[in-house]
Amino acid sequence: MSDISHTQWSTKRWAQEIASRLAAGDRQEPLVNVNADDRREFDAIFLGGGAAGRFGAAYLRAMGGRPLIIDRWPFLGGSCPHHACVPHHVFSDVAAQLLLERTFSGKLWFQDLRGKTTSIKDVVEMFRQGRTGPHAFMNYQSKEQLDLEFVLGTGGRILDAHTVSAAGETYRAKNLVLATGARPKNLGLDGQALKGVFNFASLVDTLDYEPGPTAVIVGASKTAIEYGCFFNATGRRTIVVCRNRPLSIIHDGETRAFLIERMEEQGMEFWPGSLTAIEGDKRGRVRAVTIRTPMGEVSVATDFVFLGIGERPNSEEAREVLGVSVDAEGFVEVDSRMRTSVPDVYAVGDLVGAPMEMFKARKGGVYAARNIMGEESHYHLKDYPDFMHTHYEVCWLGLGEEQARERYREVVVLKLPPDNPDGHEVALPAGDRMMLYAMMEPRLSGFQKLVIDGSSRRILGAFHVGYGAKDGFQYLAPMVRNGLTVDELGEMDELFLNPSYFIQLCRLRAGSKVLRGL
Amino acid sequence: MSDISHTQWSTKRWAQEIASRLAAGDRQEPLVNVNADDRREFDAIFLGGGAAGRFGAAYLRAMGGRPLIIDRWPFLGGSCPHHACVPHHVFSDVAAQLLLERTFSGKLWFQDLRGKTTSIKDVVEMFRQGRTGPHAFMNYQSKEQLDLEFVLGTGGRILDAHTVSAAGETYRAKNLVLATGARPKNLGLDGQALKGVFNFASLVDTLDYEPGPTAVIVGASKTAIEYGCFFNATGRRTIVVCRNRPLSIIHDGETRAFLIERMEEQGMEFWPGSLTAIEGDKRGRVRAVTIRTPMGEVSVATDFVFLGIGERPNSEEAREVLGVSVDAEGFVEVDSRMRTSVPDVYAVGDLVGAPMEMFKARKGGVYAARNIMGEESHYHLKDYPDFMHTHYEVCWLGLGEEQARERYREVVVLKLPPDNPDGHEVALPAGDRMMLYAMMEPRLSGFQKLVIDGSSRRILGAFHVGYGAKDGFQYLAPMVRNGLTVDELGEMDELFLNPSYFIQLCRLRAGSKVLRGL
Repeated sequence: MSDISHTQWSTKRWAQEIASRLAAGDRQEPLVNVNADDRREFDAIFLGGGAAGRFGAAYLRAMGGRPLIIDRWPFLGGSCPHHACVPHHVFSDVAAQLLLERTFSGKLWFQDLRGKTTSIKDVVEMFRQGRTGPHAFMNYQSKEQLDLEFVLGTGGRILDAHTVSAAGETYRAKNLVLATGARPKNLGLDGQALKGVFNFASLVDTLDYEPGPTAVIVGASKTAIEYGCFFNATGRRTIVVCRNRPLSIIHDGETRAFLIERMEEQGMEFWPGSLTAIEGDKRGRVRAVTIRTPMGEVSVATDFVFLGIGERPNSEEAREVLGVSVDAEGFVEVDSRMRTSVPDVYAVGDLVGAPMEMFKARKGGVYAARNIMGEESHYHLKDYPDFMHTHYEVCWLGLGEEQARERYREVVVLKLPPDNPDGHEVALPAGDRMMLYAMMEPRLSGFQKLVIDGSSRRILGAFHVGYGAKDGFQYLAPMVRNGLTVDELGEMDELFLNPSYFIQLCRLRAGSKVLRGL
Repeated sequence: MSDISHTQWSTKRWAQEIASRLAAGDRQEPLVNVNADDRREFDAIFLGGGAAGRFGAAYLRAMGGRPLIIDRWPFLGGSCPHHACVPHHVFSDVAAQLLLERTFSGKLWFQDLRGKTTSIKDVVEMFRQGRTGPHAFMNYQSKEQLDLEFVLGTGGRILDAHTVSAAGETYRAKNLVLATGARPKNLGLDGQALKGVFNFASLVDTLDYEPGPTAVIVGASKTAIEYGCFFNATGRRTIVVCRNRPLSIIHDGETRAFLIERMEEQGMEFWPGSLTAIEGDKRGRVRAVTIRTPMGEVSVATDFVFLGIGERPNSEEAREVLGVSVDAEGFVEVDSRMRTSVPDVYAVGDLVGAPMEMFKARKGGVYAARNIMGEESHYHLKDYPDFMHTHYEVCWLGLGEEQARERYREVVVLKLPPDNPDGHEVALPAGDRMMLYAMMEPRLSGFQKLVIDGSSRRILGAFHVGYGAKDGFQYLAPMVRNGLTVDELGEMDELFLNPSYFIQLCRLRAGSKVLRGL
């Protein structure tokens, strides 16, 4: 093991150290950053240094406590920069860029990509090279700026509710915070072990060939759609096999319809049904799948299958050693203080179940830290904004139009494009990253909708398809929760051309006591 | 003239009608949409249907009043969709796209643009074709959704404070709202009339040749920098001649330095000094300019000069006919109710001076409407967020670090990249539209900073260089004005990878009673 408690590595050095350890795999040398001069007992061991563990530890440290993080990877930040949010955003950026280049192929300065397939393997390899950059930064920040202590590159073994062994040492703490995350679910088919069947984690870790012309995606999850759009944008036939209606997470019918239309226009195929067999060749590579559809079983030739069917928790050790209560799917049960059924043991992050989102993981860590440090603090998930990618960024919060009409009598909708004889063939909205569409292919320039209770004048929901509204939805959400009205929104100062036109649409109508739609 | 009060045109039809009228220029047939059955006197005539006039009229209409808009152009929306915000955003989107394609030339699927110049003319022509789309939409919305009455495609002539003639008719109203805007300033040099000397308006209206290898920009305004970055991104030598330090509008030194570095890295040249002569060839085209610099006079060969030296108001007629008071530069003086010195005459938009921003124009119109309709209402510009483009989107609000340190004792700064041995060569921030940079050229992946008063824990300022934070700054601004703290920001729900990392950076430090920087 390397004791690095007295070193100060630059981010460049960190990137080298992380890359060599990742290459060494199970034989990597653990990194130990523990202050031997500090005689205080640890307030908490965070088992897992991902979003939940790292933010929890940082917060506990800021409060004056002493946390220790133990993680099997040689970096902090967990699956996000390695397998999840970061590659996902890389691939979604690629999808957005390729949509642009394909749409305007041969126009202006654009190269002609019509009929051409671009490489998936090159993009994955680029990410695999690049990911040590964020890894390095998070290690640097955690050590030099957040003063965190950690043992990395080795699995910690739980001995009891206060004790974990790692890298040949035994660490004791007043509390244990389980933050071991989740992993992709299996499909339960024999063929799943064949080369060419991937999930989001194995794709970035193991893809070593150029996929053929057909990609089969299984599932209707965010991940399934997001990766499907990436594969589609590379020019491949893309079949999404899903039991459930895709995009059901976006609870506004019109927004969903806009998205499905745009995806289908790009050639994406949504097949209702399920995968019943994955067939391999002699070398152990996928060569076809069988899909059960309402129209019967269909065989599709493919060497590239992607599973986006959800995740299951890494809770086995905690159940066996500590006996923490779990739900039917194995997710660890916690109360609003992030406490498990076992005294002094907390759990946070993906390990405690949906939503598998960054803000929930990080805030769960923070709430655990507060409770550990004696500040009673209850975390209630509520009315959070959400997003996903197709070829676009899609953001939403609050109620969809249908839900709103069920609950309120005077629902008013402001949207772009509005209902009009030309449908979506209208050159607004337009905003950053959308201008060429607005000028040359207005149909592709996005969709946005604000749902309002005409009686109280309060904003009930907001939906945005386009680019650049994600940051805004973060800040709009608490305002909407606190009763933001159409009048208050209309008084704000827009930065035009703002990606969402909510402020100015409100202003156009706010003069009237009886609100009308747009 | 065409009476269109009983027709309902689709946006497609509107686009055709507008295009043919623009082509006809001064000989175009005016469009009259006045409800002859309505016997009420107009509450206000809005002279000018741009951002200020159109929003003011819409608001007045929503309040139950009767407005009439008169505009010389055959469309509503004014200079924004025709000359200003919209083309500017098109060109900035092109600059961002070309920065990406140049940076990754020959990598992944990217074409190789190294050493190649792309067309400015094609982009301008594309915009010239495309702009009738937004024009059409605004006419459609104004007539069919906002129930506005208007006379378009003909200049209105002011007869007195209540009377304007247009298209052979005389219109009378209880009030007159001047919203005639501003136009680009001249340089005062003989050569300015040469072909090849442009401002933002003439560029999109008249460019009919492909500019040569060198662009000379005059001025340090937002417009100068934004258009300069576009010309630079096309692969041309770009010299910005400016008396004042560029970007002085962005009041944070570090943010400014990041931007200047990135622009200079792309080859932009900032020459302190001024243009003293523009030289033409026999055909009346620019062939060189003389620039006075601290090092002496330099002649630069160029066929393409762009002036971004500010605007002057279209206030002449109102001064002569009505005698409204104006300031030294000719901008119409108004009080906080948007009233001019002449009873019943209001003025709004660019005509009343800086900031020449959309929100101020639109809100000015709204405040004028309220006061006209008897609702006393005072517009005070304060603490508004702002933005501009380089090759990036740049957003800011509140105090810069230097200003904050002058006023507060315990200023805390949270930023990305942080001060560290590798400088800006750090792979965070990363966010949508920035992922390829984060992976392959981290130096280019942006900069962001939050300025906080450690004592009250209030946010004092925020700065963002990257993409996708514009919407967020709109909503952050009123929260900051209302005293948003680091603790409240840290409790929000981020949509990760959020373009601005403000929420999570706050959360990392909020646990501590004594705030520290990052």
